[in-house]
Amino acid sequence: MEKGKAIRVAVNGYGVIGKRVADAVAAQDDMQLAGVADVTLDWRARIVTGKGFRLFGATTERAEAMAKSGLEVAGSLEDLLAGADIVVDCTPKHVATGNVETYRRKGIKFIVQGGEKHSVTGHSFVAEASYETALGRDCTRVVSCNTTSIVRTLSALKFAGLLARARGTLLRRATDPWESHLGGIMNTLVPEAEIPSHQGPDARSVDPDLDVITMAVKVPETLAHMHYWSVQLARKAEKDEILEAFCSSPRISLVRMSDGLTAINAIKELMADLGRPHDNLYEVALWSDMLKVEGDELFYAYMVDNQAIVIPETIDAIRALTGFQADARASIAQTNASLKIGQLNLRA
Amino acid sequence: MEKGKAIRVAVNGYGVIGKRVADAVAAQDDMQLAGVADVTLDWRARIVTGKGFRLFGATTERAEAMAKSGLEVAGSLEDLLAGADIVVDCTPKHVATGNVETYRRKGIKFIVQGGEKHSVTGHSFVAEASYETALGRDCTRVVSCNTTSIVRTLSALKFAGLLARARGTLLRRATDPWESHLGGIMNTLVPEAEIPSHQGPDARSVDPDLDVITMAVKVPETLAHMHYWSVQLARKAEKDEILEAFCSSPRISLVRMSDGLTAINAIKELMADLGRPHDNLYEVALWSDMLKVEGDELFYAYMVDNQAIVIPETIDAIRALTGFQADARASIAQTNASLKIGQLNLRA
Repeated sequence: MEKGKAIRVAVNGYGVIGKRVADAVAAQDDMQLAGVADVTLDWRARIVTGKGFRLFGATTERAEAMAKSGLEVAGSLEDLLAGADIVVDCTPKHVATGNVETYRRKGIKFIVQGGEKHSVTGHSFVAEASYETALGRDCTRVVSCNTTSIVRTLSALKFAGLLARARGTLLRRATDPWESHLGGIMNTLVPEAEIPSHQGPDARSVDPDLDVITMAVKVPETLAHMHYWSVQLARKAEKDEILEAFCSSPRISLVRMSDGLTAINAIKELMADLGRPHDNLYEVALWSDMLKVEGDELFYAYMVDNQAIVIPETIDAIRALTGFQADARASIAQTNASLKIGQLNLRA
Repeated sequence: MEKGKAIRVAVNGYGVIGKRVADAVAAQDDMQLAGVADVTLDWRARIVTGKGFRLFGATTERAEAMAKSGLEVAGSLEDLLAGADIVVDCTPKHVATGNVETYRRKGIKFIVQGGEKHSVTGHSFVAEASYETALGRDCTRVVSCNTTSIVRTLSALKFAGLLARARGTLLRRATDPWESHLGGIMNTLVPEAEIPSHQGPDARSVDPDLDVITMAVKVPETLAHMHYWSVQLARKAEKDEILEAFCSSPRISLVRMSDGLTAINAIKELMADLGRPHDNLYEVALWSDMLKVEGDELFYAYMVDNQAIVIPETIDAIRALTGFQADARASIAQTNASLKIGQLNLRA
């Protein structure tokens, strides 16, 4: 690809992740949203065209049905891919697997989401840990929301020479807010059948060095996940040193119970008050006053907005694969500025 | 007290715990429910008399108001205490503190609940860990539901020589089912402000040897608490050895995800199907197939019915304080038989 030109990005699938990726791509100086492909004929499709994004049908038949229903359609997925340098697949898991064959056949670079297996791309992406190894590759997998948060936080401890091993309990939101009418759980807790849960091993697909084990339980709320961690430090440390390590990550925000941020809904409200699209919390929101160091052990909790945390990662992954930016820190800073990550100044 | 005679037990406070203690006392061969004291004039008071229990007013004035409202009242708390060998205080926290002075003045043995501080009685009770030291004492404190579960499970590991240290995350039900109209939380998670949460230190009030640290978060459900534990074992062990250790506790029931008990509501439904009063789960329900041993580390999760778990402990505490039974195992077995604890045979 030619430097200086904008990266033409196709987004395939306009769901919870796809709509946020499309907005984030449109907000980048060095990217151009080539268009969005989907199958829907309902209000969601009209949002795409209403934003001035080009809408494509996932198939030729679907594009025809869209046109017939009165939608302004620019063509099919094939047309979209023909005019793009890279495609971000945000379709449901079973659909994505089929799409990958199409991308390979077309020879277009692609990014899949964390629902896919590591083996689909052979590379798993979290900007702060694996940007460099993604440079110039044909494809990568932006890992799931929970795994992203694990890699961000444990990498911060690892880079500071503090991490020995980490054991975490994950409280998983039962469903996404906008899909809560399709079914969730009420007034109960549903443990994941297996210990360890998959997120620990998944974090090791990004960084095999991490000694991490996770357990998970589904809780009856839709806002976000919460993680509780017990970490064996590599050595005794002071709390300040730990906070400094977490602050060295550009995508961890320290928040405080004492500042009125006493629950995950309060943090979501803060995001809304900041005017962020969809009230997105892109950062890991980690409570600094709750955090406790006991000798060589560390205990803390944080919030993960499962709808938003992977969005900046996806933007960085686009730059890494296309080789538009060789420096991870530079890409992260550019993405953060565009999404106003860091505006919070909650670290004080 | 004279052996052979039934222990006359007064219950002060007919709320979530008091009503269950009263039923459990009435179910004991060696106990007699002297009566129940409360302040309520509503349907709850009629339940007391409807069961054939003697109802007392918490004060003389209250007793008069009860009589005036048409309730059959046997007198005031003073009258109740005069005809009892021991009183179980099940009143709200701020009320209990004042009651303790009354009990001491009257020279009656008493039991307070886990909401009180250890210092109120100088002794904290979990039958499997501290029955012997309660023998013949004037008073004890039956620790809270969460603490009871912690002491039961960690004691089982300790007795088997397996426990080095334990780190737990507690998901706390937001309110009791019958009080859910008075307010709870919806669609959010509310972390406890402090790490460690109080339950770890509280477990050490029963057994100072336990190396335990807890973190806690309130979840939007009313059924029960759930605990997730990471345990550093004293040595490498096989899963069978761990299960055997837990089975050695008469108040831990192993349950299985593969048996359809895949959520806490399913276990509550099992209790209802077994015909237990209030669907009480007196045991710690610990998932055996979810449990995982990794070298010298152990991971597991269990359910705690906060309304029921302390009931058998309270019955044993009555026997210990009154000296009616010097042998912890004998008291536990007697209590378990009366409440049908162990009928589940879920350990297979």
